[in-house]
Amino acid sequence: MTIPAAAEVGMPLSQVDTPCLMLELDAFERNLRRLPDSLKGRDVRLRPHAKSHKSADIALRQIALGAAGVCVQKVSEAAALIEAGVKDILIANEVVGAPKLELLAGLNRRAHVAVCADDAGNVSALDAAARAAGLSLDVLVEVDVGANRCGVQPGGPAVALAAQISRASNLRFAGLQAYQGSAQHIRSVHARQEAITRAVDYVRMTTRMLTEAGMKCEYVTGAGTGSYMFEAASNVYHEIQAGSYIFMDADYAKNDWTESGIPQFEHSLFVWTTVMSTPRPARAVVDAGLKASSIDSGMPRVAQHTDVEYVKASDEHGVLNLTGTTRFKVGDKLLLIPGHCDPTVNLYDRYVCVRNGRVEALWPVTARGALL
Amino acid sequence: MTIPAAAEVGMPLSQVDTPCLMLELDAFERNLRRLPDSLKGRDVRLRPHAKSHKSADIALRQIALGAAGVCVQKVSEAAALIEAGVKDILIANEVVGAPKLELLAGLNRRAHVAVCADDAGNVSALDAAARAAGLSLDVLVEVDVGANRCGVQPGGPAVALAAQISRASNLRFAGLQAYQGSAQHIRSVHARQEAITRAVDYVRMTTRMLTEAGMKCEYVTGAGTGSYMFEAASNVYHEIQAGSYIFMDADYAKNDWTESGIPQFEHSLFVWTTVMSTPRPARAVVDAGLKASSIDSGMPRVAQHTDVEYVKASDEHGVLNLTGTTRFKVGDKLLLIPGHCDPTVNLYDRYVCVRNGRVEALWPVTARGALL
Repeated sequence: MTIPAAAEVGMPLSQVDTPCLMLELDAFERNLRRLPDSLKGRDVRLRPHAKSHKSADIALRQIALGAAGVCVQKVSEAAALIEAGVKDILIANEVVGAPKLELLAGLNRRAHVAVCADDAGNVSALDAAARAAGLSLDVLVEVDVGANRCGVQPGGPAVALAAQISRASNLRFAGLQAYQGSAQHIRSVHARQEAITRAVDYVRMTTRMLTEAGMKCEYVTGAGTGSYMFEAASNVYHEIQAGSYIFMDADYAKNDWTESGIPQFEHSLFVWTTVMSTPRPARAVVDAGLKASSIDSGMPRVAQHTDVEYVKASDEHGVLNLTGTTRFKVGDKLLLIPGHCDPTVNLYDRYVCVRNGRVEALWPVTARGALL
Repeated sequence: MTIPAAAEVGMPLSQVDTPCLMLELDAFERNLRRLPDSLKGRDVRLRPHAKSHKSADIALRQIALGAAGVCVQKVSEAAALIEAGVKDILIANEVVGAPKLELLAGLNRRAHVAVCADDAGNVSALDAAARAAGLSLDVLVEVDVGANRCGVQPGGPAVALAAQISRASNLRFAGLQAYQGSAQHIRSVHARQEAITRAVDYVRMTTRMLTEAGMKCEYVTGAGTGSYMFEAASNVYHEIQAGSYIFMDADYAKNDWTESGIPQFEHSLFVWTTVMSTPRPARAVVDAGLKASSIDSGMPRVAQHTDVEYVKASDEHGVLNLTGTTRFKVGDKLLLIPGHCDPTVNLYDRYVCVRNGRVEALWPVTARGALL
């Protein structure tokens, strides 16, 4: 006895069981084109972050529309996507430990897989793994351009690590990873742009010092959905790593986008859920809780009902306050807009892809649970 | 190419790759016995909630130690556990919609699966599904005893629903589901006990009214790890649904347990993680973020290091503040105590079970992702 599938191809959405991850294909496809279209005439490539979708189907569509490849955060995500046909991947993150480095090196026999580093010991380990595999690895220096997470400091420390990579027998210094992650959800456009201006200054200083040290830096990569047009206009970044633009979650929707140059992306990813209890007139409970929609960046929003608020999540329940005239009965089905798409997608094994109210396809979440 | 496993049986923990879900078997087995031992001499049975662990291996161990069966929240969780040999399940929740009701009825051919209801229309649908399957279903009335989530109001509304169930041709009124979920994490023992005293009063009033209406209520079930000794001492509850006691997460550990009668459970479930970056002297970054440890009930705690605080999680990163003398280097491995075990377990495909620093077993998370 296997757990039944929520949906089958051809089924009307109304019959699809809940909770499930619903991708509205028309909105998704508009988002999919809207970002590369917005970069036309700019000298930057798109390399979307696949940590948002973990899907080979989506990665291959992004590449078909001109993306250089995709980013991932984990070497096991790279493995899953390469297995499904993706040929060019940047692990926009550090990879640590012998088993993972061996896997990383091995993957380079089947695809181009670059990786980031911010530590001298890790660079030595990368070199040893590449040597053991008899090949050369592309390594980027991750620079902390204000995100306060990983990365060496801009300028001297970045140049020193780049020099170590350049000297290593089986590594190639491939460029700079310069992602200002903490800028992406700053609500004000102006403050977001200021954070990117500082990041750009750090990158410019670092590339100048690299040139002075005789190391040409031909590849600077970074940016997210919240800020990418600023990086694209900087003449410093060569590649844009936006990922969330295809789905547009409730948290990103709270940003101000006025005069950012970033087009309006639509919500295309939803959690399809059923009202399982209506215990009081102004309260309803749905069957999608913490295990169906990640609440790390806030509660999901209820689509199509401005007078209904999702106020509380427990493992398998979501409590709705009905603040206006909307009322539900047990069995009604609703769409939730996840607070944060990336960890929500990771809860599911498949996307239920819907067009005109009917299931058109089921796409696996190829790298679901790929934590290594 | 499949995603490599983090661990193999026999491997020392130090070699196990990260992030993974690590179960410390000695502490787990002590917890496993400690709760049923604490109920000895009381006229209550244990029916642990399997939503915490989603594991057939653990459910069968709980039953071997005397548990009457287990609870689940979802009919698909029941299906997965029945497939693995569990014979007695209470879905401590409402089940809504024709596909799920059909599955529920079908499962009753292979095991005893009771379910809760709080809605007249749902009771009719349960009856129709049972009739279509040619069998009888046990249905409990869920009563809202203060949790403010699902459930009918105590007293008259509960009696009316019980009467409807009793009249239905293919249903049996099996008792009351009376779980005071919002009491479980009240920090003060006294306030927690007061909340349960109110719940017990609601149950007592309802069972008295049921008796007056000619419906004997022989089965009242509820309680969680935070409060169960109060329900057990009430002479009103017949069954205890505690689940988290086997793992003990960081959130539950913040409760005061003084004079609660509840034994001290140990942390037995951890996320094993690697330091992937040490960008500044007082900061380290680990490879376990939002997708490795759910933060809905707070950040994970760092085990064994009181001067290290996990302060920020992004998808695949956890930022540690090193407030004392502890320092890490890239590649060091640490244990995190999840903020909330239930949604954390649901992120993984297997438990890496460790005893004396060595992997003894790998247990599947049998019902991982079972949302239907």
